[in-house]
Amino acid sequence: MTGLPDRLDRQLDFLVEIDKLKTITRASPIADGTRKENSGEHSWHLAMFALVLADQAEPGVSIDRVIRMLLIHDIVEIDAGDTPIHGAGAGSTDQAEAEARAADRLFGLLPDDQAAHLRALWEEFEAAETADARFAKALDRCQPPLLNMASGGGSWTDYAVTLDHIDARVGKPAARGAPVLWQRVRARILPFFTAD
Amino acid sequence: MTGLPDRLDRQLDFLVEIDKLKTITRASPIADGTRKENSGEHSWHLAMFALVLADQAEPGVSIDRVIRMLLIHDIVEIDAGDTPIHGAGAGSTDQAEAEARAADRLFGLLPDDQAAHLRALWEEFEAAETADARFAKALDRCQPPLLNMASGGGSWTDYAVTLDHIDARVGKPAARGAPVLWQRVRARILPFFTAD
Repeated sequence: MTGLPDRLDRQLDFLVEIDKLKTITRASPIADGTRKENSGEHSWHLAMFALVLADQAEPGVSIDRVIRMLLIHDIVEIDAGDTPIHGAGAGSTDQAEAEARAADRLFGLLPDDQAAHLRALWEEFEAAETADARFAKALDRCQPPLLNMASGGGSWTDYAVTLDHIDARVGKPAARGAPVLWQRVRARILPFFTAD
Repeated sequence: MTGLPDRLDRQLDFLVEIDKLKTITRASPIADGTRKENSGEHSWHLAMFALVLADQAEPGVSIDRVIRMLLIHDIVEIDAGDTPIHGAGAGSTDQAEAEARAADRLFGLLPDDQAAHLRALWEEFEAAETADARFAKALDRCQPPLLNMASGGGSWTDYAVTLDHIDARVGKPAARGAPVLWQRVRARILPFFTAD
């Protein structure tokens, strides 16, 4: 006994620590509108989007890598909080720095090889440059509109969001990774913005 | 236009429908003890267990298949409800029939090829005979004890559970798919049952 946690203990400590993702509240509601979604269940839902919508990915995308990316993409929110895409803090330098510190601490709980691997996967998602990451990011943009629509407005109402704003903030990255999917999602949400 | 939903519409309808998994309440609490866990966030957490604890799987296990299995393993609960492992209904014929009907309806929302694929993956998990399914089932048994321990008792207190009961209901399937992991989890929870 060295007194230091071994590989398995570090893994278990990490798995208990990331339970906190279930307490991070997002801007979007769940579909029935009864409460806001949390980032843990959101990550499950997105992984299901990747599994089911695999045929929307461009050739060469590894769906299993995308699933792994989506499972970990919000873990930094445990320390850095959620930044609503329609809010003022989205894309700020402060937020990016807070998330980098969070990644250091949280992934750093794992054995070094796993910490480096998951950190790199998270950075790939954030950069949204590889085909896998562009598809993952597109799914992350397509899910909240479906929940807002299902619940009758959700964060669109809370943030007084316009269709132009959605096209710029949501539609652009969504169409970059999954153009056909985004057109269908846009067609589904259009009635909300055109009804009087 | 035929008026019938096409492949993509069926996929999107399924993805909105399974949002309901976020409203299915389990017997175990989240780690901070503030509320019960729901089956959506539970499925995310288990997928992370598979990703992080991959080296606990026996040789030949496909972690990506295990992750997919865990992402869908509780979807039938949307119609059939959660059956607490320490409760009276666990393993009943009624429950199995209700889950089979739920699988028919829910996976049946998808295009036929995907419905058949996910249905087979869910049945493989339930049967717990393949190496992939034994590992998935072991993770599903190891996670709640860690959350009960973190929160100071959880469903052990609610159901007046003894260590003998855990060894039989939880430990046996856990040790079958991940013996070293289960020994470590058991060592972590032992103080709860031996403290006076």
